[in-house]
Amino acid sequence: MFLNKFLNMKLSSIFCAILFLVSSVSFAQEPVDYVNPIIGTSNYGATFPGPIAPRGMASISPFNVAGPQNLPLEKDSRWLSNPYVHENTFLTGFSQVNLSGVGCPELGVLLLMPTTGAVETDHLKYGSTYSNEVAKAGYYSTEIDKYNVKAEFTTSKRVGVSKFTFPKGESNILLNLGLGLTNEQGAMVQVVSSSEIEGMRSVGSFCYNSPEAAYPVYFVAKFSKPADNFGVWKKPTTYKGVEAQWMGYNGKTRMMDASTKMVVGDSIGTYFSYNFNKTETVEVKIGVSYVSIENARENLEQETSNKTFNDVYKETYNEWNKLLSRIKVEGGSKDDKTVFYTALYHTLIHPNTLNDFNGEYPEIKTGKIGKTEGTRYTVFSLWDTYRNVHQLMSLVYPQQQSNMIKSMLDMYDENGWLPKWELNSTETFTMVGDPASIVITDTYLKGIQDFDVKKAYKAMLKGADQIEDNPVRPGLKDYIEKGYLTTDNGGSVSTTQEYNAADYSIALLAKELGEKDDYKRFYNRSISYRKLFDKELKLLRPRLNNGNWYEPFDPNDGANFSENVGFIEGNAWQYAFMIPHDILGLKKLMGGNKGFTNQLQKVFDTNQYDMANEPDIAYPFLFNYVKGEEWRSQKLVEELVQQHFTNKPDGIPGNDDTGTMSAWVVYAMMGIYPIAPGEPKYSITKPLFDKITIQLDSKYYKNNELIIEKDTNADGYIKEVLLNGKKHRSYFINHDDLVNGNNLKIILK
Amino acid sequence: MFLNKFLNMKLSSIFCAILFLVSSVSFAQEPVDYVNPIIGTSNYGATFPGPIAPRGMASISPFNVAGPQNLPLEKDSRWLSNPYVHENTFLTGFSQVNLSGVGCPELGVLLLMPTTGAVETDHLKYGSTYSNEVAKAGYYSTEIDKYNVKAEFTTSKRVGVSKFTFPKGESNILLNLGLGLTNEQGAMVQVVSSSEIEGMRSVGSFCYNSPEAAYPVYFVAKFSKPADNFGVWKKPTTYKGVEAQWMGYNGKTRMMDASTKMVVGDSIGTYFSYNFNKTETVEVKIGVSYVSIENARENLEQETSNKTFNDVYKETYNEWNKLLSRIKVEGGSKDDKTVFYTALYHTLIHPNTLNDFNGEYPEIKTGKIGKTEGTRYTVFSLWDTYRNVHQLMSLVYPQQQSNMIKSMLDMYDENGWLPKWELNSTETFTMVGDPASIVITDTYLKGIQDFDVKKAYKAMLKGADQIEDNPVRPGLKDYIEKGYLTTDNGGSVSTTQEYNAADYSIALLAKELGEKDDYKRFYNRSISYRKLFDKELKLLRPRLNNGNWYEPFDPNDGANFSENVGFIEGNAWQYAFMIPHDILGLKKLMGGNKGFTNQLQKVFDTNQYDMANEPDIAYPFLFNYVKGEEWRSQKLVEELVQQHFTNKPDGIPGNDDTGTMSAWVVYAMMGIYPIAPGEPKYSITKPLFDKITIQLDSKYYKNNELIIEKDTNADGYIKEVLLNGKKHRSYFINHDDLVNGNNLKIILK
Repeated sequence: MFLNKFLNMKLSSIFCAILFLVSSVSFAQEPVDYVNPIIGTSNYGATFPGPIAPRGMASISPFNVAGPQNLPLEKDSRWLSNPYVHENTFLTGFSQVNLSGVGCPELGVLLLMPTTGAVETDHLKYGSTYSNEVAKAGYYSTEIDKYNVKAEFTTSKRVGVSKFTFPKGESNILLNLGLGLTNEQGAMVQVVSSSEIEGMRSVGSFCYNSPEAAYPVYFVAKFSKPADNFGVWKKPTTYKGVEAQWMGYNGKTRMMDASTKMVVGDSIGTYFSYNFNKTETVEVKIGVSYVSIENARENLEQETSNKTFNDVYKETYNEWNKLLSRIKVEGGSKDDKTVFYTALYHTLIHPNTLNDFNGEYPEIKTGKIGKTEGTRYTVFSLWDTYRNVHQLMSLVYPQQQSNMIKSMLDMYDENGWLPKWELNSTETFTMVGDPASIVITDTYLKGIQDFDVKKAYKAMLKGADQIEDNPVRPGLKDYIEKGYLTTDNGGSVSTTQEYNAADYSIALLAKELGEKDDYKRFYNRSISYRKLFDKELKLLRPRLNNGNWYEPFDPNDGANFSENVGFIEGNAWQYAFMIPHDILGLKKLMGGNKGFTNQLQKVFDTNQYDMANEPDIAYPFLFNYVKGEEWRSQKLVEELVQQHFTNKPDGIPGNDDTGTMSAWVVYAMMGIYPIAPGEPKYSITKPLFDKITIQLDSKYYKNNELIIEKDTNADGYIKEVLLNGKKHRSYFINHDDLVNGNNLKIILK
Repeated sequence: MFLNKFLNMKLSSIFCAILFLVSSVSFAQEPVDYVNPIIGTSNYGATFPGPIAPRGMASISPFNVAGPQNLPLEKDSRWLSNPYVHENTFLTGFSQVNLSGVGCPELGVLLLMPTTGAVETDHLKYGSTYSNEVAKAGYYSTEIDKYNVKAEFTTSKRVGVSKFTFPKGESNILLNLGLGLTNEQGAMVQVVSSSEIEGMRSVGSFCYNSPEAAYPVYFVAKFSKPADNFGVWKKPTTYKGVEAQWMGYNGKTRMMDASTKMVVGDSIGTYFSYNFNKTETVEVKIGVSYVSIENARENLEQETSNKTFNDVYKETYNEWNKLLSRIKVEGGSKDDKTVFYTALYHTLIHPNTLNDFNGEYPEIKTGKIGKTEGTRYTVFSLWDTYRNVHQLMSLVYPQQQSNMIKSMLDMYDENGWLPKWELNSTETFTMVGDPASIVITDTYLKGIQDFDVKKAYKAMLKGADQIEDNPVRPGLKDYIEKGYLTTDNGGSVSTTQEYNAADYSIALLAKELGEKDDYKRFYNRSISYRKLFDKELKLLRPRLNNGNWYEPFDPNDGANFSENVGFIEGNAWQYAFMIPHDILGLKKLMGGNKGFTNQLQKVFDTNQYDMANEPDIAYPFLFNYVKGEEWRSQKLVEELVQQHFTNKPDGIPGNDDTGTMSAWVVYAMMGIYPIAPGEPKYSITKPLFDKITIQLDSKYYKNNELIIEKDTNADGYIKEVLLNGKKHRSYFINHDDLVNGNNLKIILK
C-alpha cells in the first residue's frame, strides 16, 4: 500500500514537472509569463494570488484568514480586507468571488475545500496547512498537507474551475457557504443532483456601510464526477427558549445526508463525497451571477461547457497575454518586468464585469434587471482610481475606458447620481469628493468621446450644484457659499480639495462644450482651496464655521490613517500639494518656486510622504513644475519604485486600491504620469525601461503604436526630450502630442 | 374627520350586516353551515379557526401564541402545538400553512399581517388585540383593534386568500417569515414586483425529532393592488467579534426599501405599503407548494386566477357542503348538529393534499420529485387515526380512503417502509406500533380493494419480520422471541400491544389472501400480550429482560402523559383493554364476563379513563362484549359525548389528533363504532340523532345510502336492533351487513 501510494505520488510529481517544463518552454518570454500574483499578498496589498480572467466576475483565492491559527492576521480579530495573507498558514477553502486590493472586507465567499476521510464541516477542524504554491496569471495551485490533495485553479470570466487530485480512499469536496470574508451572513443552497449544486450567498455591507443594500451572489457548481454520497449541513442558531430542553440537536450541526431540499441559514454548506480506489481528479466548475441561479448556470455553460480545466486555463492565459502585450518593454531586469506586468495585470482586474453572459445585470437602486450590449463594469473605487487608473485605460485600453464611462452613465440613469464607490450595483458612497466628473472629463478630453457627453455633463452639474439631498457632495452649501467646508463636516479640507479638483474638471468640460458661463463659474470654484491656505504654516488648514482657523492645529497629526480634523486618510502635509490643477496658484501662495520646492522637499525629508495612500501619490512628480528642479522628480520616482515595488509578496506599498498603486508604478516605470487628473497631460520622468512600445487602439488613435525610449548611452538625469526626433521643451506633454507623435525619446545626461 | 371616519365605519358595518343576513338566509340549513371551527381551539384541541378547503394544503389561522401578552399559553414558554388559542388575545399575524389537532409544534408559518401607519416589523410591537371573530367552514374574519382593519380569509386547496379592508391613510401588509410555530428557522424571500412576492420558509423537526429532515415550504404571494412602497426587512444575528465596533447596524433590523433582491435569514419579512385616500380593500393570494416556487405560482394561478375572494369562498363552501352532506342527520339539537358536522369537518382536514396542481410532490427520502395522477396525501398520524379515522373514511369517503392507501404504498416504494407518522414526506417515526398494517387490512376487508394488495402485504410483512434496522418496529427481536418487548425498550407493554394489533391485522389479510401459514403465525403472535398479563393485578405489566415483572409497579402511575415504564402516553389501566382483537381472550384472563366487566367499570369509576387519549378511547364500547351489560356502553357513550364534545372552544377533550377525537364523536353520535380496527365490524350503541342518512359511494358499495335511525317513541336503552326490518341479534354488526343492508333501526326501551 505504502509503496503503491509512493509510486502514485512520484509519477504524478514527475508528470507535473514535465507539464511545467512544457509550459515554461512554450510560454516563455511572453508578457503574461512575468505576472506574479503573489505580489501584493502581504503588507496589506490586499491582492489575491488565485486566478481571475481580465476584468472577471469570478475569481478564486485561497482563503487563509480564518481561525486562531492565522492570528494576528485573522479576519475576525481586526480590520482585514483580504481573503489571503501570504504569511498565514491555515487554509480553510478557496473562495470563488473576491475583490482585489481594497481596504474593506467584502466577498471572499463560496469556499470550496477538498478533504479526505470522514466529512468534517467545521473549518477550524478541516483546515490545513499547504505547500508548494504556484501562482500565475489565470492559474494557481497548491498542495494541501493534511489531505495530500493537489488543488489547481483557473477561471473564465464568470466561472471558477477547480481541479483536485485526490489520493485513493474517501474524499470530499466541501462547499462552505457560511464562512467568508464579508460580514454579511445568510445563504441558500439546493443540491440538484450528485454532480450539481445551486444556491446563493448574501454579501454586502462594504466598509461596514449600507447593510440594507446587502445583495446576493448566485452560483451553480458542476462536478466532473458524480459524488458517491452528498448532503447539506446546517449549523442552526442555538435555541434558548424553554424548548431547548427537548431539542437534543440544539445548536448542533445537522448532516442532511442525500438532501436535495432547499436549505437556508447563516452557517450551511454541502459535502460531495467519493470513494476512490486509485488517485483520481475531480474538476468543479462554479458559475456565478449577481442576477439569478439561471444566469449562473448559463454563464457556466456558455463559458466552460465541454471545456477541460486546461482548455479554460489556456483561453484565459491567452486573453491575459493579449491584453498585457499591448505594452512591450525592453531592457530592465527580469524583476523589473515582473513588477511592471504584474502591476499592469492588477490594473486589469477592477473595474470588473458585472453583467452575465446574456447581458443581464442588477441595476443600482431600481431593483430592475438591466441588460447591456457591451460590458457593465462594476467596482469603481473612484477616489483612488480617478488619479491614474482610468488615465492608463484611456491610453492603452480606450475601448474599455469608454465602456466604463458608459457604465457610469447607466448608473446615473438608474441611481440619479454618478458613482462614487460603486460595488456590484450598490453605491457605498465611501470616501469623499466627486471623482466621476474628473474621470469623465479626462476621458473626453483624450478624444474618447463615443459616449453621451451631454448626459454626462448634466450628471456632473447635478452632483456639483444640487445643494439638498446630495449624497455625492455633502457640505456643498458651505462649499459654495464660503468656498470651503467647515469643521462641521468631517474631512473639511480634504473634501474641499476634492470638490475643487472635480470643479476644475467640470470647468474644462464646460469650456470644451462651449458652456462659457459654467466654465467661469466652475473655474472660480476650483481655486477656493486658497481660502484654506495658512500663510504661516504654508499648508492648508481647517476653518471653523465662523471662519476662524481650527485650533490647536498640528500639521503632523493624522499620519498613518489616524483620525484627524480636516483631513481624510492623511494629514496637512499629505494634502497640501493635492492641487493638481492649480500648481501655479499654489506656488504663488507658497512663495514662488523656491518656497514651493522647499516645502515639497520637506514632505519627503521629514518622512511625511506616504507612498501607500492616494492624496500624495502625485507629489514626486511635482518638482517638474519648477524649472531646474525636475531632477528631484526623476530621483524620487526612481527611488520610490525601487523601495516600494518589488517582486515579493510585500511588493506593493499598501492596499493596491483596485489597481491605483499598480497604475502608479506602471506609469512611473514608463517615465510618464498623468499629473493632473482631468487634464490630458503627463509629466515626464526617466523611464525605467530602455524601450516601451504601447500598442494604440486604432478606433481611438491614428497611430498604431507609441514608443517611449531612453538613450541608453548615459544614466544620469534627463538632458533633453525628443518628440519624433524634435526637441520637446517641457517636462510635460499633452496627451494628443504624445499619441499623435509616435516616439518620445528621453536623452540622459 | 372624526365624523367621516365614523360614517365609514358605520356604513361598512351595515354593509357587513346585510351581507351576513343574505348569506345566512341563502346558506341556512346546509350541513356546512353547522360547522363551527372555533370548536377545539381551547383545551389543547389544537384545531385552528381559520379556513381550509377539504384536505387542503394551504390553510389560514390567526396566530396568537407569540409574545408575553399571551402567557401562559405562549409558544416559547411551553410545549404548545397550535398557532391559535381561543383564550389568547394578542394577534401577530395569519399563518398560511397549519396542522390541525396535532400534539407537536410545526408549520404555523408565513405570517401575513395588516397594519396601518409607519411600518413596524417587530411582532411584539405591531401585534394587536382583535374583535368580532367569525369562523365558518372556509371563512374566517376578525377586526384588528389597533388598526381598525377588517381581515377576512378563505382558501382554495393550495392557496390562501386574504382580504383586508383598510381605513383611509397609510396601510401595510407585512409578511413575516421569521416568526412561526415551528422550531425550524430560516427563510428566503424575493419581491418580484409591487404586487408579487416569492420565497420559502424552512419547517420541520416535528416533535423535536429529525432536524436533519427539515424541509422547505415555498410560496408565491400576489396582491390585488400594487403597493405604493415595498421592501424587505432583515434582523441579522448580532455580531460579537472585534468588528462589532464598526457595525453601527449590529443586530438591528434593516429596512431594505424597494429591494427586489433575494434575501435569506432567520428573521426576515416583507412590507407592502399603501397610502389610501379612502377605505380600500386589498386581497392577497398566497399559493404554497412543497416542491418549488414555480409550482406555488402555478397552484395560485390554476386555482384562483381571475377569482375574487368571494368566488374562492363560494367554491370552497360548496366543496365542504358536498362532502359534509354525505351524512345527513335529523333530530338532535342545533348544538348536536354543530358538534357533529364540525367533527366530520375535522376528519376531512388530515390526511391532506401534498401534491401540487400539476401532480408533483416531494418523495420521501429519495430526494426526487414524484408525480401523481390522483392525490398524494400527507400527514398520517397513524397511531391515532388507525383507530377510527380511516374506518370513517372507508364508510363515507371510500375513494379518499383508497387514495390514502395508495399514498401509503407510494411511501413504501420511496422509503422502503410503510408510514408511521408521515408529515409532508418526512417520516417522523413518532409514537409506537405498526399502524399502517391495520389501516390497510381494515380498508381491504371493507371491500375497498383498488390498490396493489400484494405490494401492501409484502410491505406489511417487511415491517413485521425484518429484525435488523427496522425503524417501524424497534424491539422486534424480543417481541418475536419472547412474545413481548422488555423494559430494555421504552413503552414495552404499549408497544407489544400495538404489535399484537398489527399482527392480528396481518393475520386477517393473510387469511383473506390465502396465506394460511402466515395467518397462523401472525395470529399466534397477535395474542402474545397474554404473557404480560399479571393475574394479581388483572392488568398488563412490564417485564424485565430476564422475564421477571418490573418492580415496584403502580398501575396508577403514568396518567396525564407523565412518563411511565412500560407505557406510552398512558398507564396500565388505560392500556389494559386495548386488545380489540382478542377481547374474548382478555375476558378469560380477567376471570370471565364478570371479572372483565368489573375491571372495565373500575377504569371509569376510578377516573382512570382518559377521553383525550387514544389507547382507551374504545373502552366505552367494550361492555357490548358482555351480554346484558351493553347498557353500560350506551350510558357511557352518551355521557362522554355530552361531557366532552360541545359547541364551545373547549369542545374537544384534548388534541384532536388529526381528527381522531372527532371521528370518535362522529361515530358515537351515529351509534356505531369501529370497535376492532382491522376487523370490518362495528359496535352498536344508541345514536344521538333520530335519523342518519349516509350517502354511499356507488363505486364501492351497491346501495346508494345507509340509514341509521332510532325509534323516537322511547328514550331508554336499546331494546332491539333491526337490520332492514329484521331483528339483528347482536350489538355488533359487520361492515358488509351494514352497508349491504340499508336500514339499521334501533328500538329503544
